[in-house]
Amino acid sequence: MNSHVDTVLPNDLASSLCNAMADIHRRGWCDGTGGNFSCVLSREPLQLLMAPSGVDKGSVEPHDLIQVDRQGTVLQGIGKASAETRLHITIVEETAAGAVLHTHSQAATLMSRYASVIHHDGRQDPAGAKDEDRSVRHLVMGGLEMLKGLEGINSHHQDISLPVLANDQDLEQLSERARPHLQNAPHGLLICGHGLYAWGNDLKTARRHLEILEFLLEQYWRQLLLVAATGAGGLP
Amino acid sequence: MNSHVDTVLPNDLASSLCNAMADIHRRGWCDGTGGNFSCVLSREPLQLLMAPSGVDKGSVEPHDLIQVDRQGTVLQGIGKASAETRLHITIVEETAAGAVLHTHSQAATLMSRYASVIHHDGRQDPAGAKDEDRSVRHLVMGGLEMLKGLEGINSHHQDISLPVLANDQDLEQLSERARPHLQNAPHGLLICGHGLYAWGNDLKTARRHLEILEFLLEQYWRQLLLVAATGAGGLP
Amino acid sequence: MNSHVDTVLPNDLASSLCNAMADIHRRGWCDGTGGNFSCVLSREPLQLLMAPSGVDKGSVEPHDLIQVDRQGTVLQGIGKASAETRLHITIVEETAAGAVLHTHSQAATLMSRYASVIHHDGRQDPAGAKDEDRSVRHLVMGGLEMLKGLEGINSHHQDISLPVLANDQDLEQLSERARPHLQNAPHGLLICGHGLYAWGNDLKTARRHLEILEFLLEQYWRQLLLVAATGAGGLP
Amino acid sequence: MNSHVDTVLPNDLASSLCNAMADIHRRGWCDGTGGNFSCVLSREPLQLLMAPSGVDKGSVEPHDLIQVDRQGTVLQGIGKASAETRLHITIVEETAAGAVLHTHSQAATLMSRYASVIHHDGRQDPAGAKDEDRSVRHLVMGGLEMLKGLEGINSHHQDISLPVLANDQDLEQLSERARPHLQNAPHGLLICGHGLYAWGNDLKTARRHLEILEFLLEQYWRQLLLVAATGAGGLP
Repeated sequence: MNSHVDTVLPNDLASSLCNAMADIHRRGWCDGTGGNFSCVLSREPLQLLMAPSGVDKGSVEPHDLIQVDRQGTVLQGIGKASAETRLHITIVEETAAGAVLHTHSQAATLMSRYASVIHHDGRQDPAGAKDEDRSVRHLVMGGLEMLKGLEGINSHHQDISLPVLANDQDLEQLSERARPHLQNAPHGLLICGHGLYAWGNDLKTARRHLEILEFLLEQYWRQLLLVAATGAGGLP
Repeated sequence: MNSHVDTVLPNDLASSLCNAMADIHRRGWCDGTGGNFSCVLSREPLQLLMAPSGVDKGSVEPHDLIQVDRQGTVLQGIGKASAETRLHITIVEETAAGAVLHTHSQAATLMSRYASVIHHDGRQDPAGAKDEDRSVRHLVMGGLEMLKGLEGINSHHQDISLPVLANDQDLEQLSERARPHLQNAPHGLLICGHGLYAWGNDLKTARRHLEILEFLLEQYWRQLLLVAATGAGGLP
Repeated sequence: MNSHVDTVLPNDLASSLCNAMADIHRRGWCDGTGGNFSCVLSREPLQLLMAPSGVDKGSVEPHDLIQVDRQGTVLQGIGKASAETRLHITIVEETAAGAVLHTHSQAATLMSRYASVIHHDGRQDPAGAKDEDRSVRHLVMGGLEMLKGLEGINSHHQDISLPVLANDQDLEQLSERARPHLQNAPHGLLICGHGLYAWGNDLKTARRHLEILEFLLEQYWRQLLLVAATGAGGLP
Repeated sequence: MNSHVDTVLPNDLASSLCNAMADIHRRGWCDGTGGNFSCVLSREPLQLLMAPSGVDKGSVEPHDLIQVDRQGTVLQGIGKASAETRLHITIVEETAAGAVLHTHSQAATLMSRYASVIHHDGRQDPAGAKDEDRSVRHLVMGGLEMLKGLEGINSHHQDISLPVLANDQDLEQLSERARPHLQNAPHGLLICGHGLYAWGNDLKTARRHLEILEFLLEQYWRQLLLVAATGAGGLP
């Protein structure tokens, strides 16, 4: 199960992670030093390779990366681990993820808020609904060939149900609220008004899952606009 | 009729195909390892040069390409041929295509689903209409100078009628459903919730047709939004 | 008045024109070999430097450029002059233009059609209005600081009135219909369902005018959507 | 308080400023020679490093930059200081800003006009309301993790209130109208129909604030469209 950890040398992994961050930044998915990106270096004991907190993700070099343990303590490298490291670790613990990519894109931010007030069957919360009522929602997406880019999906007829969690500045709490939803999540989850986490067995798979989920979220909002504007009924 | 096959050396063709894929990927039209792209190497017997299944189309090198025969068997190179090779071959058989480019763009995905529920004269299928009713639709586009970028179109007054087929995980079936529509298609077709196929006599022409069709699909959805929002009647 | 012609060597001008085309192509404003781009080499006799017809504007090299005379005859270089050379020449004759840039962008295409059915004061032509009724419209834009990027505009309070001509495959006719509107045009005009022509005293100024007009057209359609969707009245 | 001035050599600062302008230009936020960008070289006496007026911001080299004093007089370098230097200086005087970045993006232009007619509580000015009534508005944004990229914001629960000033070709007047709003502004302000000013203690921080504010403005208009089209109530 740890095989993907061993097949890549740490130096190569550091380069690959920096390249991934630069590409993701170029697409505008982690502006303003937003987002964090990690790879598993070892599982026993758990160690992650990641960018330090508060740096521009478009220009990170391999020697800028830090290594952190399960408590988020920096074992090697200069800088602080983001508070969101907590959620990266929870994801790695609950899934087979070898890499976790967290972005702040326009589509993820927008659809996360939409999902938190509109149920996927179209019902809407009454005005004044409390945050707790929105602590877990799901964004259901289906009918698209692109879904097949997610491990385990073999047909456009299979829906996915992306968890959407209320945001929380306490990452310990947020991680514990996320934990029960991770194993059944489609390799990703949304945090309301915040962004997307995507993961995969290794960095390459995590990037593919990220691109697929970002595509689906962008498609979703364009479809909502088009359907609402033209009065077209439910698309197939 | 096979002259375009002979005028380009296989090495040059491999480089040109990789450049085309890199450019198409940069535009976001084949995210998440989506899409496939092929060129005809020989017609008798039929042989295609293409990228293997499941790779990131933004970073394919000439030596990564595979050669496949009419049955989709890999003759040379490492990796698997995508199941969609079947449709590439059907297109090459039914048209003079020397290259076939299949993308998963936002606009193609969105308009393919829209077209599958809204007839081009504005009628809409009743809720609950069956998939079969949507097995072939047409998206009609006209009035645009850009249409002239398609071989055979000489005036903005000529409409095109882009076939839209229901998606199917059985590519044999999908290809046979597509076959009767290929000769009259405007060098392209849509698959519902899936994406666009575009082709041309050679790779350069196929790229031009792809860019034109993607432009028209993007234009179409913006126009639908604008017309619906502002109440402008039919545009010229 | 011809001084801008003399201050730049032909070789430098050829490089600058190729760089301009590559940048414009990168922005997606001349996909599918669309658009044409010219600079004045001499006024007496009139000679233009331009890309030949039907080439991808993203990869033109200086030695690919052609020189054409007032009749559109190719004096030097390989390839054909586009039929649209006629309109480039008319623009150069009627204005002080030293460079003419013609693009096929999404925003220009969309707004050109919108303007051709909606008068700028909001009135709309009845269904079935004839093409002739639309042979010249105007798109009026104001209230924006960006207008000051156009020569002769010194305040955001000055409106511009961009001519919108019906499209025509006969470029002789189209040019003659355009001629009376050129001197008062804001360094640009739209052709319905076709695209934008922008010009300036030299290539640098023409590029600035192009960027400004493309910005304004993109802004216009976003504003129409927002105002229509939210019910906001006339923006300042 | 001036420490950020001393920690960077002028040559490095010039390079960093040119890189920042090139990146900002590449994103389409200062087309058509629009925008201006400055860094503080010294506070006593006040001296700014900036690009001269009227140049393409995508290709400025360090030796093209000018140094200006508190009156906007050019102390070193070739070219004119933009009239907007006045507002850069007022911002530097009233805040701890070490760098000021002024952009003309689509989102900033659009939302600045929207905010000037729609109060943030949804009330709309009656038709014919005078410019003076709109001399200062505020665009209120909240509920987003991205807000935390602004110095002083520690939670997505903290709203920001971005001042929106009526545009004015008299920069002396505009600067004096802006002055009382600068200290409480969220490191940025909008000018109606014109664009965004963003600032920070140093160039790196100003770039982060610019990216955050541009993200929020782009998000805002997408959200307005989606909420209006789908009838979703207030997003969380």
